[in-house]
Amino acid sequence: MMMQLWGLEGIPEITAGDELASLIGDALERDPRGALDGDIVVVTSKIVSKAEGRFVTADDREDAITAETVRVVASRTNPATGSTTRIVENRLGIVQAAAGVDASNTPEGTVLLLPVDPDASARAIAAALRARFGREIGVLVSDTMGRAWRDGQIDQAIGSAGVRVFEDLRGSTDTQGRPLVVTLPCVADELCSAAELVKGKATGIPVAVVRGRADLVGSLDLPGARTIPRTGPNDMFRKGYDEAHADGFGAGYDSGYAEGYEAGFGEAPESSS
Amino acid sequence: MMMQLWGLEGIPEITAGDELASLIGDALERDPRGALDGDIVVVTSKIVSKAEGRFVTADDREDAITAETVRVVASRTNPATGSTTRIVENRLGIVQAAAGVDASNTPEGTVLLLPVDPDASARAIAAALRARFGREIGVLVSDTMGRAWRDGQIDQAIGSAGVRVFEDLRGSTDTQGRPLVVTLPCVADELCSAAELVKGKATGIPVAVVRGRADLVGSLDLPGARTIPRTGPNDMFRKGYDEAHADGFGAGYDSGYAEGYEAGFGEAPESSS
Repeated sequence: MMMQLWGLEGIPEITAGDELASLIGDALERDPRGALDGDIVVVTSKIVSKAEGRFVTADDREDAITAETVRVVASRTNPATGSTTRIVENRLGIVQAAAGVDASNTPEGTVLLLPVDPDASARAIAAALRARFGREIGVLVSDTMGRAWRDGQIDQAIGSAGVRVFEDLRGSTDTQGRPLVVTLPCVADELCSAAELVKGKATGIPVAVVRGRADLVGSLDLPGARTIPRTGPNDMFRKGYDEAHADGFGAGYDSGYAEGYEAGFGEAPESSS
Repeated sequence: MMMQLWGLEGIPEITAGDELASLIGDALERDPRGALDGDIVVVTSKIVSKAEGRFVTADDREDAITAETVRVVASRTNPATGSTTRIVENRLGIVQAAAGVDASNTPEGTVLLLPVDPDASARAIAAALRARFGREIGVLVSDTMGRAWRDGQIDQAIGSAGVRVFEDLRGSTDTQGRPLVVTLPCVADELCSAAELVKGKATGIPVAVVRGRADLVGSLDLPGARTIPRTGPNDMFRKGYDEAHADGFGAGYDSGYAEGYEAGFGEAPESSS
């Protein structure tokens, strides 16, 4: 099994209102490797947001994060700098620092919100590329994320169209013939991480093509990247340690106070005798 | 920028005591693409563990997890099956389900512990391949991991030799000339995720070659994958919600009880008058 990835040359600087699917199509058309059935185009969310005009002025950055936040998971203020990092669940269900609000590679004085609906953005691009090239092309929209217990960041999928986001091996068997019961590789995330290695933040190349996993490409009706985030009852880390501890402290205090009060009340006559 | 990845054919089933570096070298030698300076060989941790004889009998699985555990982060029992998932920090600092103890693709009745020191394992393989081929080859050892807030699993790096695990962009600037202050892509993790896409759990191919990021390959003295896990004071998620809540409840109860007792005591004479 062989896979090739490359950064797609010739995407211009994107501004609000640009027809992103056309610009990516133009770059693909100029690429001597062409477009083949099963190619996966990985698009950095930043240019999707720019095309959608998701700019807000930098003064509003904290307000913008708040507006994008469904739920604060954890926040931590750096005592040295006074700046606060907020890990939040955003309206897409993604748990991410600063709700994905981005201040790098944006026009001076502005920050950028995530696309409104990255799965829909991916679908629009995929539909346009499929129509233009007559090829079954998949599209992923990627964003850079930190991780709970690992330093640094990796690119992960926030939008998907025509790509299987999970490679479901749960019905298959290992080489010993035993069922692979719990294995559900998130191939959409792995593809976005792979693509980051050829796009690169400092190079300014925002789109990559992945060739060699055509088996993961299919109908535009396949479930999107919205199916990746795990929130709700199955989320064992729905708040940071300090926040969960504070919840527990409050509940414990109330319970302890009530019992302490009763005990103190009960023993008081003895003590005052 | 172009990157190629492929699964390396011809690695036999590995058993305890096998010379893994020789077997990978033999497979590389038979590969018509050869070995070039800057190639990165990604080795599934499972075969490193097998070569190192890290088998324990399946009956001891829970004991094995306990022995590999430095600290329980969260545990959750499935009420339907009665089985408990334990997310723990293991002796390598990695936060992972079941301490990385693995029951798939292992001989019947056995489970497999992680390699003793995956950075050292990577270094031994890299040194042997460099000596054999006279090429500057990097080696990563990968393992499959779940994530806090995302379904499914991705492959990440647990061992590294001769590969820059982080691509440090913190000194560089974005296309607008502003410093990329917080960007530290964990390229070792991204390379392992990329490699998983050509190895595949169900195919039984445990080694991949990545070609095209020679800039990430260097001295065998580069910091290993042991530098990736983030634990200690900077870990905002050092326990699961329920565990952190319980810690807080205990502390809150004690505090509330003391204050409640005092209040109850103080008011008792009035109430009994």
